[in-house]
Amino acid sequence: MAAATDRVKQILSWYSSDNVGVKTNLARLMMHGSLAGTGKFVILPVDQGFEHGPARSFAPNPGGYDPDYHFQLAIDAGCNAYAAPLGSLEVSADKFAGQIPTILKLNNSDTLAKVDQPCSAVTASVKDAVRLGCVAIGYTIYPGSGARNVQYEELRDLVREAKEAGLPTIVWSYPRGAGISKEGETAVDVAGYAAQIACQLGAHVVKVKPPKDFVEQAETKKVFEKYSIPTKTLADRVKHVVQGCMNGKRIVIFSGGEAKGTEEVLEEVRGLAAGGSFGSIMGRNAFQRPRAEALQLLASVMEIFRKAT
Amino acid sequence: MAAATDRVKQILSWYSSDNVGVKTNLARLMMHGSLAGTGKFVILPVDQGFEHGPARSFAPNPGGYDPDYHFQLAIDAGCNAYAAPLGSLEVSADKFAGQIPTILKLNNSDTLAKVDQPCSAVTASVKDAVRLGCVAIGYTIYPGSGARNVQYEELRDLVREAKEAGLPTIVWSYPRGAGISKEGETAVDVAGYAAQIACQLGAHVVKVKPPKDFVEQAETKKVFEKYSIPTKTLADRVKHVVQGCMNGKRIVIFSGGEAKGTEEVLEEVRGLAAGGSFGSIMGRNAFQRPRAEALQLLASVMEIFRKAT
Amino acid sequence: MAAATDRVKQILSWYSSDNVGVKTNLARLMMHGSLAGTGKFVILPVDQGFEHGPARSFAPNPGGYDPDYHFQLAIDAGCNAYAAPLGSLEVSADKFAGQIPTILKLNNSDTLAKVDQPCSAVTASVKDAVRLGCVAIGYTIYPGSGARNVQYEELRDLVREAKEAGLPTIVWSYPRGAGISKEGETAVDVAGYAAQIACQLGAHVVKVKPPKDFVEQAETKKVFEKYSIPTKTLADRVKHVVQGCMNGKRIVIFSGGEAKGTEEVLEEVRGLAAGGSFGSIMGRNAFQRPRAEALQLLASVMEIFRKAT
Amino acid sequence: MAAATDRVKQILSWYSSDNVGVKTNLARLMMHGSLAGTGKFVILPVDQGFEHGPARSFAPNPGGYDPDYHFQLAIDAGCNAYAAPLGSLEVSADKFAGQIPTILKLNNSDTLAKVDQPCSAVTASVKDAVRLGCVAIGYTIYPGSGARNVQYEELRDLVREAKEAGLPTIVWSYPRGAGISKEGETAVDVAGYAAQIACQLGAHVVKVKPPKDFVEQAETKKVFEKYSIPTKTLADRVKHVVQGCMNGKRIVIFSGGEAKGTEEVLEEVRGLAAGGSFGSIMGRNAFQRPRAEALQLLASVMEIFRKAT
Amino acid sequence: MAAATDRVKQILSWYSSDNVGVKTNLARLMMHGSLAGTGKFVILPVDQGFEHGPARSFAPNPGGYDPDYHFQLAIDAGCNAYAAPLGSLEVSADKFAGQIPTILKLNNSDTLAKVDQPCSAVTASVKDAVRLGCVAIGYTIYPGSGARNVQYEELRDLVREAKEAGLPTIVWSYPRGAGISKEGETAVDVAGYAAQIACQLGAHVVKVKPPKDFVEQAETKKVFEKYSIPTKTLADRVKHVVQGCMNGKRIVIFSGGEAKGTEEVLEEVRGLAAGGSFGSIMGRNAFQRPRAEALQLLASVMEIFRKAT
Repeated sequence: MAAATDRVKQILSWYSSDNVGVKTNLARLMMHGSLAGTGKFVILPVDQGFEHGPARSFAPNPGGYDPDYHFQLAIDAGCNAYAAPLGSLEVSADKFAGQIPTILKLNNSDTLAKVDQPCSAVTASVKDAVRLGCVAIGYTIYPGSGARNVQYEELRDLVREAKEAGLPTIVWSYPRGAGISKEGETAVDVAGYAAQIACQLGAHVVKVKPPKDFVEQAETKKVFEKYSIPTKTLADRVKHVVQGCMNGKRIVIFSGGEAKGTEEVLEEVRGLAAGGSFGSIMGRNAFQRPRAEALQLLASVMEIFRKAT
Repeated sequence: MAAATDRVKQILSWYSSDNVGVKTNLARLMMHGSLAGTGKFVILPVDQGFEHGPARSFAPNPGGYDPDYHFQLAIDAGCNAYAAPLGSLEVSADKFAGQIPTILKLNNSDTLAKVDQPCSAVTASVKDAVRLGCVAIGYTIYPGSGARNVQYEELRDLVREAKEAGLPTIVWSYPRGAGISKEGETAVDVAGYAAQIACQLGAHVVKVKPPKDFVEQAETKKVFEKYSIPTKTLADRVKHVVQGCMNGKRIVIFSGGEAKGTEEVLEEVRGLAAGGSFGSIMGRNAFQRPRAEALQLLASVMEIFRKAT
Repeated sequence: MAAATDRVKQILSWYSSDNVGVKTNLARLMMHGSLAGTGKFVILPVDQGFEHGPARSFAPNPGGYDPDYHFQLAIDAGCNAYAAPLGSLEVSADKFAGQIPTILKLNNSDTLAKVDQPCSAVTASVKDAVRLGCVAIGYTIYPGSGARNVQYEELRDLVREAKEAGLPTIVWSYPRGAGISKEGETAVDVAGYAAQIACQLGAHVVKVKPPKDFVEQAETKKVFEKYSIPTKTLADRVKHVVQGCMNGKRIVIFSGGEAKGTEEVLEEVRGLAAGGSFGSIMGRNAFQRPRAEALQLLASVMEIFRKAT
Repeated sequence: MAAATDRVKQILSWYSSDNVGVKTNLARLMMHGSLAGTGKFVILPVDQGFEHGPARSFAPNPGGYDPDYHFQLAIDAGCNAYAAPLGSLEVSADKFAGQIPTILKLNNSDTLAKVDQPCSAVTASVKDAVRLGCVAIGYTIYPGSGARNVQYEELRDLVREAKEAGLPTIVWSYPRGAGISKEGETAVDVAGYAAQIACQLGAHVVKVKPPKDFVEQAETKKVFEKYSIPTKTLADRVKHVVQGCMNGKRIVIFSGGEAKGTEEVLEEVRGLAAGGSFGSIMGRNAFQRPRAEALQLLASVMEIFRKAT
Repeated sequence: MAAATDRVKQILSWYSSDNVGVKTNLARLMMHGSLAGTGKFVILPVDQGFEHGPARSFAPNPGGYDPDYHFQLAIDAGCNAYAAPLGSLEVSADKFAGQIPTILKLNNSDTLAKVDQPCSAVTASVKDAVRLGCVAIGYTIYPGSGARNVQYEELRDLVREAKEAGLPTIVWSYPRGAGISKEGETAVDVAGYAAQIACQLGAHVVKVKPPKDFVEQAETKKVFEKYSIPTKTLADRVKHVVQGCMNGKRIVIFSGGEAKGTEEVLEEVRGLAAGGSFGSIMGRNAFQRPRAEALQLLASVMEIFRKAT
């Protein structure tokens, strides 16, 4: 690992209440891959086998049935890190040990069950993350769910246990549940609120979806209007989310969502970068493409973020 | 820290069953800021980013998106303490270490979820409070909620764990839930009852809302009438709440509620002071004002309480 | 503490499976106050601030807002013990240390919440009882509640932990819930059954309400008729409850219930004494009276029990 | 304790995976009382004070209000063991220490509450059993209840903890709940299934009710018909249950149920013995009779089982 | 145990993140019985006494009432392992110690109770498996059940505890519950998804039912059509499931289901083998046949798998 750049040191300074172990692993995330030292992130997450099933996830590019495929893709693309559930890391982590920082996603959901209040199952532990050589844990919350307390309290314990093991926590914050309309799940106010909640719960890195030009909550809508908070461009909306992340003092990255055309992906990434996003976490748009295309796309995404520094 | 005044010593004498660590931290709260030594309190609490979302909380005065802002405001205003959830303290506690007593709010709720019975999530731990150098923990109960047992029992464990760490507990007691009408949430009898419950659960400091001239419970109404308990002025009602706090042997402070005009705020504070309140805990009325105005308002509030000693 | 009388030794002999610590504290209860050595009990319990709210409890005699008041009343009246929730003992226990045996009531309920199945919250711990110098713990069960398993199982753990700390357990057994009619809550068969359950759960002392001349359960009614079990006088009914307490080998005392006239109270106490009750636990009828009247009434009650030995 | 007979050694050989402590206490059960050495059992269980209330249980023979009565009855009758809930053993265990093996019934239910899914409360612990000098623990399951998982999982933990303390486990297996018709509770197929479940959960001794000539489950009925499994006589049905108990390699005994006439009791016991039952566990039919009659009846029952060896 | 073959070493290489203890026991499973060294499995599971009741399970071949019968059958047939619930192993494990690898099935369900969301009870522990000399634990999940989180989280803890004891985990993955149609329980997409979930949860060996030519989930159906995934033959469908098992890097075996004719069984096994199954787990089709027939059938099944290597 090279010496940390000034930007990396600046970002680390916002985590000054954390122990050196946690800061060391945050530094590892920021000092690896093509974007090393820039303070920007492109992460490859592959939990879709669990979340959507293997056929929907890997049939478009069957190499992906094999967990090794994704590890190698993330390494070759120069990603900052690779994130996956327990089983995928069990198969491949030993083989690729030390080649790329890994993030163990501790909770997961599937689409086979019908549940009243969305709530992922905690399917792995901090001890597993340590055992598998990971640099961070990942955890998904669904603000808006009636089961939110279960999720926030599990996260509280995991954050604390991870800190004791020197691991930072990355929180996937996906508003969902009876308290929110379908459209509201990606509303700009809800995105900003969801990011704030993740930060308050102790997340070191927050992941949200790119917000839409829509305000969900009635009380908040009045505030957006009264203070003329701009929401028209993606950059505007990302800026609002970044503010909600402790005024930019917590790293926030955005997901890519469903697979789509290359130009569409890049256009979105440009908006994210312009709004001040710390980076992208891109799954299906990467691994469902043929490998060569995926490497090309990821390189383009990284280039956009590099230019934004 | 200066030598404790007689008033501070008197107040500490009511906590004689507590260990020296707890009393030391109670003394720290009472010996800091403009009101040091008076036994009066003005505390700055900033949990609205979690409770109402960042836009509603900070758009009126955008400096507040940054947790450092509030820390500095509380220090410059001469508050006794600054209270916030985990994430806010993670960002700023190290930077301002030792400059003002801090209170870690251990449980929090958001407005994204619809829940049947109000119950905050426990989002941080006593160990976090110790690690972050806090002098006390904060916890919210909702008497009147069907989930009251969960909350009282969590609080029991946290009070005990905090005592063992030498930390006193501040309980936000907010009547709410299926057992109480909307108007009843600030009824004078309910406020007194809610304060009593907090004390019986082991709170060292109780925080309630200023009660209204309304009696909610039928059985209690008969008693108020039979014994002609006065409820007409805010001072009358505060006096009833103070009685409910072990006849004044437990510290009770009052919140300011929604943002409002300066004179309105001061008028209310005068009523609180006249009724024997130990002080105010004032969030939105402070941090949603421009910084200079906020400092001025807080100084005026402190002046009122100083005169009441 | 004076040497134990033969009667005290006899009562202790029924607790021969308990350790010496528990028996020592049972002896302390029996060897204190006006009735020391008689094997009879008059206990002052003050949990009404929690259970009914401060106004309903203390407005009739406002000195009672202060926890010190009750401690002093119990001492001056020569009660065997004073029982209260955590907060009240926190305020006063240190001040009155060693002057009277105290009982920490570990669970409590309030009247602000509407709950489906009655179940008190466990608001303090055995460790608190030890820390506060108590000689026993108190716990309330609601036989008849759908939440009975929660209550019985909490009690099981508390009894065991208390034993390990040398503390006996006093169980308030109040039938209540969907399984019982309102009238049935004080039915003689239900009272006897509730007392038996408390004993089987390991209670050292049982507290029930004075039973009425009514049989609730159909199957039991046949038995009362077939075997001509008398239920007409209070003494008859108390005798049945005493039988249900391991044929008198577990101490059972009766509460006084709502405040009422002095003669009415004494008449009831005479019935209790005639039926073989080990004593009374008298709250509102004591502390809601002016202090002098209360002392007089308690002296009269003690006199009745003394004569019954 | 005399030297173990060949039959006792044979029975112990089926428990070869257990530790010596457990086998020692199984041997104590088999080597005590009138049937010592025969491998047959007559046990006196008295949990009816808890399960049905004191009046229904003890009014027919009021000596039984006193726990000492039952201890003495079991000793004088030459029973293998006496089984009771915590409270009864607390009163008497020290007095009769070492005179008869005792079984602590760890969970109990009462008839005061209405519960949706039958589930007893765990009212005592393995530690209590050890402290009170017991040779075994007892636990009731209700196969057919929607709360079955709670019960099976509690039992799993108790069996393990008991083994570690050298105590075998006796499981009362009483089919009951929404999954079974009233008549089905004593159906022969259900009895056999309930016995199998208890064995699979690790029971050392199983207790079921004498099955009736009725098959509850549709799928199983086809099997009984296809393979012509006889169910006409009680002996036939007991034989089926014994098969379900690991082909006779787990001890299974049968309860007597409600009080009835002497000849009726003995007729039933003859059927049990003919079918290969290891014995009877007889409560109300014993302790609700006058003591002399009870001793006579128990002697007759033991004689029947002795002849069956 | 003979020296591991190259195939066994290859399979073990996919478990490289596991500790040596786990790999040793995986090797024991693969190096025992007729198929030793081939990397193929035929396992005898007997949990039907618990799952369907003793009569339905053992009346067709009454020798099976005795747990010893199955142990001896598995040994004589040359199976890789014998799997059973706690009670069955308690009876026989000591007698047959060291003669065949055993698997303790940690959770079980019965057909007596009606439950809203299918969820087995955890009826034994990893400590039991260690105590009884087992080489692995078994656990059943019901993907599609509303109680899935309970099951996945229990499994997470058991997998971790088992790893610490050097034991691999075999997961029975049976889709079932409100999220899935009856037909969908054996749909090919659901089978593949259920297998993937088991792998992601950390299963070392997965057991599913042979999938049918049916696709349940609408979104997945589109994918099967778009990418022309073949599902017509059993071999096609098994191949899809094997892909879902980390592209074949996790062992997956298939159950036989209800008893049926010999040729029907063998035809199905041929399909499994052709699709790349690692083997069969065959219960009722083995133990409900007369012993000689069962041995013959198992030998034929093994022969099919041997030829497929």
